[in-house]
Amino acid sequence: MNREALMEATKSQMPERRWKHVLGVVDTAVELADRFGGDRDKAWLAALLHDYTKAWPIERMEKIIREQGLPPELLEHDKELWHAHVGAWVVRTEHGIDDEEVLDAIRYHTSGREGMTKLDKIVCLADYMEPGRDFPGVNKIRELAQHNLEEALLAGFDSTIRLLLDKGKRIFPLTMLARNDLLLDVERRKQERD
Amino acid sequence: MNREALMEATKSQMPERRWKHVLGVVDTAVELADRFGGDRDKAWLAALLHDYTKAWPIERMEKIIREQGLPPELLEHDKELWHAHVGAWVVRTEHGIDDEEVLDAIRYHTSGREGMTKLDKIVCLADYMEPGRDFPGVNKIRELAQHNLEEALLAGFDSTIRLLLDKGKRIFPLTMLARNDLLLDVERRKQERD
Repeated sequence: MNREALMEATKSQMPERRWKHVLGVVDTAVELADRFGGDRDKAWLAALLHDYTKAWPIERMEKIIREQGLPPELLEHDKELWHAHVGAWVVRTEHGIDDEEVLDAIRYHTSGREGMTKLDKIVCLADYMEPGRDFPGVNKIRELAQHNLEEALLAGFDSTIRLLLDKGKRIFPLTMLARNDLLLDVERRKQERD
Repeated sequence: MNREALMEATKSQMPERRWKHVLGVVDTAVELADRFGGDRDKAWLAALLHDYTKAWPIERMEKIIREQGLPPELLEHDKELWHAHVGAWVVRTEHGIDDEEVLDAIRYHTSGREGMTKLDKIVCLADYMEPGRDFPGVNKIRELAQHNLEEALLAGFDSTIRLLLDKGKRIFPLTMLARNDLLLDVERRKQERD
């Protein structure tokens, strides 16, 4: 499937506002890939597909989780996480996307995970800072992203956790683990530079 | 062993400043037990012993973890958590404390855990708010503790997590799980009241 057809297929899954967000993530992810030595084609593809099922009815996602052998513990996690895993399954099944790196970047773009790959980081960070985003701390994330992928993403996770604390909402365990792991990653890289 | 002898034994494990903190936690825990229908004797005992090995050299605690069959994964966790688990082992071994509720309250007083008992909550909250404590948000915790055990403790965990975010330090996974679980606990109790 060529790029244009894949873009059309993706666009048709979501309302206009979400599609605009996706295009913002695509541009930002490609920019970040160029800046930090990532694979720009994979960044483009994972960013394009990251929210493929975001606007789907929750029942449709639940059915796929139950019937297609996705990890059943997903059902106990926050529904916000479903679209990432279901999305990876759907784009593999419907569009033959079989690059595991790309699929993982889609799967973990919302929660993050321990041991994030460069592509995971790029897509996750692009999702935080694409031009349409506006939340307390987003400009600091954009500044950090000028020169440090890990520190920018860490600031992203921190902002999410703060927001969830302020709102009295659950924190995804995986996000907290991802944030702790990224902190080690940032420290290790600092030591390597010194 | 009578109370006075146990107090003397505990006092001898730590510098004066830490002992003053322990006495503050004891008074606060007994007060909270009375206020929220907890067991005041167990609260007294767990609070007295909660920091029993806090001032011990880290090597001494590591030796106990390695040689006495404590969970080896403790060694991979933050050293800040060791004294809670080692303390429970030591007071059982040296003073014959065998009340599992009391031992659990000692074990989990720093991190918290999912499914905290009333005694766990009382000791953990007393540790946050004893009169000697002074950190951003402590007065809010004390106010909440006038009428709601769970909301006060939740505010305590939230303040810890915020502090760790501000300092760029790791968040204990168990603390985050404890906080998420407590949030459900608070919501459930609210619904029961409504």
